[in-house]
Amino acid sequence: MRPRLYWTRRTDRDQPGDPVTHRSSSNDRTALVVVAHHRADSLTAHTARRTADRLEASGYRVDLLDLHAEGFDPRMTTADQPDWGDREKAYSDEARAHMRRVLDADVVVAVFPVYWQSVPALLKGWIDRVWNYGFAYGRSKPRLAGKRMLWLGLAGATADDPITEAMHALLETSLSEGIASYCGFSHSAVGLLTDAEERPQRVDAEGGLLVGDAVAGAEREAQYADFDRRAREAVEKFLAAEGVAA
Amino acid sequence: MRPRLYWTRRTDRDQPGDPVTHRSSSNDRTALVVVAHHRADSLTAHTARRTADRLEASGYRVDLLDLHAEGFDPRMTTADQPDWGDREKAYSDEARAHMRRVLDADVVVAVFPVYWQSVPALLKGWIDRVWNYGFAYGRSKPRLAGKRMLWLGLAGATADDPITEAMHALLETSLSEGIASYCGFSHSAVGLLTDAEERPQRVDAEGGLLVGDAVAGAEREAQYADFDRRAREAVEKFLAAEGVAA
Repeated sequence: MRPRLYWTRRTDRDQPGDPVTHRSSSNDRTALVVVAHHRADSLTAHTARRTADRLEASGYRVDLLDLHAEGFDPRMTTADQPDWGDREKAYSDEARAHMRRVLDADVVVAVFPVYWQSVPALLKGWIDRVWNYGFAYGRSKPRLAGKRMLWLGLAGATADDPITEAMHALLETSLSEGIASYCGFSHSAVGLLTDAEERPQRVDAEGGLLVGDAVAGAEREAQYADFDRRAREAVEKFLAAEGVAA
Repeated sequence: MRPRLYWTRRTDRDQPGDPVTHRSSSNDRTALVVVAHHRADSLTAHTARRTADRLEASGYRVDLLDLHAEGFDPRMTTADQPDWGDREKAYSDEARAHMRRVLDADVVVAVFPVYWQSVPALLKGWIDRVWNYGFAYGRSKPRLAGKRMLWLGLAGATADDPITEAMHALLETSLSEGIASYCGFSHSAVGLLTDAEERPQRVDAEGGLLVGDAVAGAEREAQYADFDRRAREAVEKFLAAEGVAA
């Protein structure tokens, strides 16, 4: 037996003192760059710094959020669990501080290693705890409406491995469609940066993982120069699309 | 410029003292039930306990792994990061203890709330840190081969919400195909348990979330009785498929 459903669309009244989305002028735009890696010397952290530099060069004020360095705990808590009966629930101070940073940003760029065709737990928990009911979704006037998002995922797979196409599609579905667009973002794209490891990875005909020998010397320099170029192109493509949309 | 690739398939030699997969007799089977929720009084925890009871009634020894109660930290660490040049890397003591529990199990059942069409960070990190290179994948003879897996996800969406079909498909792709089958499991299925909240959830024509009024009294009793029945059926269907496969 299924219960009858009494649907209500709750009124969309902001509470006094609630944060309000403001449209920045083109000279006063903010980019929130979210890094999800446990090592400061990782290629992920390097890519996030370069991305921040590129955004600053384009006139953005950059808020760099290093989830590991800031000690963010991705585990859900009772305080940050949605209350489906109270869209105005006051979440934890920590979650609300993160909400403010998302709200202040015109664009959000998440930079992360791809683990299991998805984001690492550290980034998943930031979404779970911060992109919460009543803030990121669940209002007829989304507070995050009009913002733009880029997901930059680093993968050890090689560009010509057939798995990368399926991986990219899965990331687009789960991150761009399932999260950012659902929350009212006007644009969301996944940049999948392959060949992110010094040892290339492929999947064989039976689906097993093959790991190649490490590249070294000039070859490695060339690999990482190429990686940096592709990362920069992904950011520039994202910024160019913004120009078109404006 | 892309680096040349020197593919090597490393020999599949186990090290002395390495854990060895053993096939249990049919009277000595073990089920690892993994719970990923932050509250012991959650419907997720309740469903995990009932699932454990059902497995015990079917003759399984049950190892109940409550990730929150055991203080599992889902954040990746340098110690548990894969070393693509060393498949024999000694991961942290904590990760190795979890690997042993996975290895000792004939079936693994994960019980979790669906957050963002995916597993919560707590469970994602258990996969990230424990289902590691050289243990769960990366060998021509997978150590987890032949095991069976059930993913029981609790969702607030109603069964007749069109989103549940897409959600189920996305979970099957990412969890059953992308994780369990990739690691050599002989069978993996997702049981999506809808109507898990007292306030039903639907998506409207524009994709916005609608939250229904809370059910109460006899109606609520009926809702949860129905939920328990569907959870039990998902476990029984999984166990019956095992009989067919044996």
